[in-house]
Amino acid sequence: MSRPAAPRVTIRDVAAAAGVSVTTVSHSLNGKGAVDPATRARVKQVAAQLGYRASRAAQALRAGRSGTIAFVIPSVGAVAEEREMLSLDYYMQLASAAARVAFTRRHPLLLPPPIETLDDLRELGVDGAILCDPARDDPRIALFEELGLPIVTIERDLGRPDHRWYVEGDNRGNMRLLLDHVAAAGGRRIALLSADSTWSWSADNEQAYRAWCEEHERTPIVEPTSLRHLETSAYDRACALLDRPDRPDAIIALAERYATGVVRAARERGLRIPQDLLVAGGIDSHQAAEGDPPITAIDLQPELQGAAAAALLVALTEGERPEAPRIVPSRLRVRASTQRT
Amino acid sequence: MSRPAAPRVTIRDVAAAAGVSVTTVSHSLNGKGAVDPATRARVKQVAAQLGYRASRAAQALRAGRSGTIAFVIPSVGAVAEEREMLSLDYYMQLASAAARVAFTRRHPLLLPPPIETLDDLRELGVDGAILCDPARDDPRIALFEELGLPIVTIERDLGRPDHRWYVEGDNRGNMRLLLDHVAAAGGRRIALLSADSTWSWSADNEQAYRAWCEEHERTPIVEPTSLRHLETSAYDRACALLDRPDRPDAIIALAERYATGVVRAARERGLRIPQDLLVAGGIDSHQAAEGDPPITAIDLQPELQGAAAAALLVALTEGERPEAPRIVPSRLRVRASTQRT
Repeated sequence: MSRPAAPRVTIRDVAAAAGVSVTTVSHSLNGKGAVDPATRARVKQVAAQLGYRASRAAQALRAGRSGTIAFVIPSVGAVAEEREMLSLDYYMQLASAAARVAFTRRHPLLLPPPIETLDDLRELGVDGAILCDPARDDPRIALFEELGLPIVTIERDLGRPDHRWYVEGDNRGNMRLLLDHVAAAGGRRIALLSADSTWSWSADNEQAYRAWCEEHERTPIVEPTSLRHLETSAYDRACALLDRPDRPDAIIALAERYATGVVRAARERGLRIPQDLLVAGGIDSHQAAEGDPPITAIDLQPELQGAAAAALLVALTEGERPEAPRIVPSRLRVRASTQRT
Repeated sequence: MSRPAAPRVTIRDVAAAAGVSVTTVSHSLNGKGAVDPATRARVKQVAAQLGYRASRAAQALRAGRSGTIAFVIPSVGAVAEEREMLSLDYYMQLASAAARVAFTRRHPLLLPPPIETLDDLRELGVDGAILCDPARDDPRIALFEELGLPIVTIERDLGRPDHRWYVEGDNRGNMRLLLDHVAAAGGRRIALLSADSTWSWSADNEQAYRAWCEEHERTPIVEPTSLRHLETSAYDRACALLDRPDRPDAIIALAERYATGVVRAARERGLRIPQDLLVAGGIDSHQAAEGDPPITAIDLQPELQGAAAAALLVALTEGERPEAPRIVPSRLRVRASTQRT
């Protein structure tokens, strides 16, 4: 490992030149602690004269500040299974949008490996995090809070009703929109492949589905489906649904990739989509758009959600108190899977 | 900023307990420097007993090692324009694949802001980088080399013929495949919207295009197109091409989003695709797949390229000497834009 070409000015050099302690220099430069304005000004001037530039690594070590923002995907179990989340359109579009905002504000965006302990988190030396789809009482939020690091969630932690730093779509409204659309398309027995999780997104959707069924005097048909091995899990649940005597004539496949499993199950049973079975997705993806048939789905507009979350987090790391939560508009993408022509 | 709950075991504690120098501990634990095996083993044992865990930030500060891998997008000018790169399917799919590999190997993947100086790079405290589409003599590679950090490029730096740590597709073969396909589809005057850059990908494609034209005794029609504001730039160049007296009957739009600009220019002129004009893309994207019409394109399989680059870099950061370069297979995706039925 070669060393930097020139020895860099250290915080100690600045302290010596300014005749103050290293702590005072640190506080003066990162705007923390109680330092009288005159001293702070002098320290800043000396630091500038010496060409002192705090290294991010040094900052990270000293005060947990690195300017880096972590983008954390949902924890759904083993690493091998968690990798699947990293391959989903929704999270990658969120990450891409967050990276664009961070990039413009000159903050690095970090995609970390699983964070399980305080050490894991300390070692990342990040300034804060965007956490996607927190579980109820997500332990990772507690870790960030223990280190005093701001965290913005996409969707809410149902165990933390007071945490208002989140971004989400109008999940209940979206589910009603989807149900009205599927019903208008001819769906009479509309089943829901719900996402078996404690995520607010899953809860909001299932709640709205049940409320809608009650209002429309329909019997809810809910199949909780695993968030691991999405396609296969959805295929299994869809098979169970389609082999029932009172077979549903419409299935709402909540999570990304669920629809693909449903289509497979329907095909094997000689059911045509949309003629014999209407299929709609709770979250859009390129797989849905490009599928055969293309699948009607809710587009949560992750590019807007990710940008809003990054802007919110950057503001928090810079000590502002921005407006929150932020509800991002969604879109219903109508495609062949619900169009009987 | 709250402090870590418990004081952590430091490298000094380990040095004291093992009766060796801090440097020896450092070298023993990160496998560097000359330490005799017995000492290395003892240090590791002591470190384990004390529950010592090197903090990534400390490592970054001490030796520029953080376990973090940077994923660096092409530099195409101002930050505002560079952001466009971060929104392209190709780079986001590369990043996603690299993140999955890094995640599994427990390395964080960093999407940094623009890297212009050694300080920028030092502050990131990364272990190495994957750099996409380097320009000829890309200055960022020099920065990494100055800090002795390994760098794997996706595509090659044409100014560094000796740098063999790269991953790429068979660009020349892909262009020939595309040209043969477009010619078989009826293209007689096949024009190329080339990407105006010093990237090896651009050079390989243009070279293969010219060679193919010569072999087939056709006059090459090349319109160098900017990599900034991709759609608009391609639209402008396509307008120029389509208003020529000897209007081409086929256009190969090399870069992502170019095809969209070509389609717009053709529409405005009442030209039908594929009947009056064949359109094909040099790189696939969801925009191409979902476009109206869907566009035939070369799929460089970024998910394979990104995984290969990450595996290569991780091996290098761990001191191995893996096989390189790695040529990743590509696929021709035939769609309506070149199918006259």
